[in-house]
Amino acid sequence: MSAPVLSFWYDFASTYSYPAALRIEAEAAPRGVSIAWRPFLLGPIFAAQGWSTSPFNLYPAKGRYMWREMERICEAQKLPLAPPDPFPQHSLAAARVATALEGAARAAFTRALYRLEFGLGRNISEQETLEAALSVAGIEVAPALARARTQDIKDALRAATEEAIGLGIFGAPSFIAPDGELYWGQDRLEAALDWAAAF
Amino acid sequence: MSAPVLSFWYDFASTYSYPAALRIEAEAAPRGVSIAWRPFLLGPIFAAQGWSTSPFNLYPAKGRYMWREMERICEAQKLPLAPPDPFPQHSLAAARVATALEGAARAAFTRALYRLEFGLGRNISEQETLEAALSVAGIEVAPALARARTQDIKDALRAATEEAIGLGIFGAPSFIAPDGELYWGQDRLEAALDWAAAF
Repeated sequence: MSAPVLSFWYDFASTYSYPAALRIEAEAAPRGVSIAWRPFLLGPIFAAQGWSTSPFNLYPAKGRYMWREMERICEAQKLPLAPPDPFPQHSLAAARVATALEGAARAAFTRALYRLEFGLGRNISEQETLEAALSVAGIEVAPALARARTQDIKDALRAATEEAIGLGIFGAPSFIAPDGELYWGQDRLEAALDWAAAF
Repeated sequence: MSAPVLSFWYDFASTYSYPAALRIEAEAAPRGVSIAWRPFLLGPIFAAQGWSTSPFNLYPAKGRYMWREMERICEAQKLPLAPPDPFPQHSLAAARVATALEGAARAAFTRALYRLEFGLGRNISEQETLEAALSVAGIEVAPALARARTQDIKDALRAATEEAIGLGIFGAPSFIAPDGELYWGQDRLEAALDWAAAF
């Protein structure tokens, strides 16, 4: 029997996806769950809700709370936290690179880029940041960036976002169990893994 | 030394406040934390954000997720769940009754009313539901309802809502530790209690 798979849906602009991405494999392994790393874009989903930017910018009290909660979460996970400027970051280019990668390479790139973005405050729409993340993840830079610019990858990312909407996803990080059960929020990661582990 | 106090801010229209209200004392006691039950109104806060109704109605995907998550939470806490109609409920009259009560009576009324609202699907803006909750909580009905209608209580509830805004509260349930540390969401209850227990 193969391990049950939990799909991990993330947007590189999403703050709470950072601690989730950095601990998900360590939490999944002892439960015998495999992770499918699924980059997508929240922008079109937020736009359809009438939001022109992050809800954390639209609703200041919510935004202040999010940054303070991120401090608490990152302290507990011993992760550095440095809010990037601007916030939210433009995540399109990063999501295309992640989409252009597969398996362990995608996971490694994702973790590296989140560390640069929220651990160092780097701008992930800049080519040099994407290059650094690929390099740190041990991935050949030029072929990955070239593939990220192809129409196939653009289409695949668009399809992934449509798929996310169809699955009922409205925020990130989100987790989908083998039966379609949806969990939203980094604090629900362990519950999602427990649910998936039963399959 | 007296026990540290965690303030529990709730609105009777808030679904997630129901499981929080029903387990907060049991979670607080072993940690040596006392609970201050603080009814307030989310309506003015949501209105200031441009929301005319619950975000769970404004954003259908979020609403579907909330009801499914409520099923999971209530199952884990062995609580019945019956969504009231209309949703959200009008919580003004209920909040005034809770404000008119003090200490253990306020807590008992709150728990009883949440059970009627989300366990049985009763309409909490109806006098007979408020009477039932008071009665079940062992509180004399007529004096409580009379006090709830006084200008003092109306003013106190308005002041509580202003206080909540000043504390950075933007949703319910919210928890405030002795140092002002804010936790939002029923899933953050245990973390808030742990934080408060250190004082």
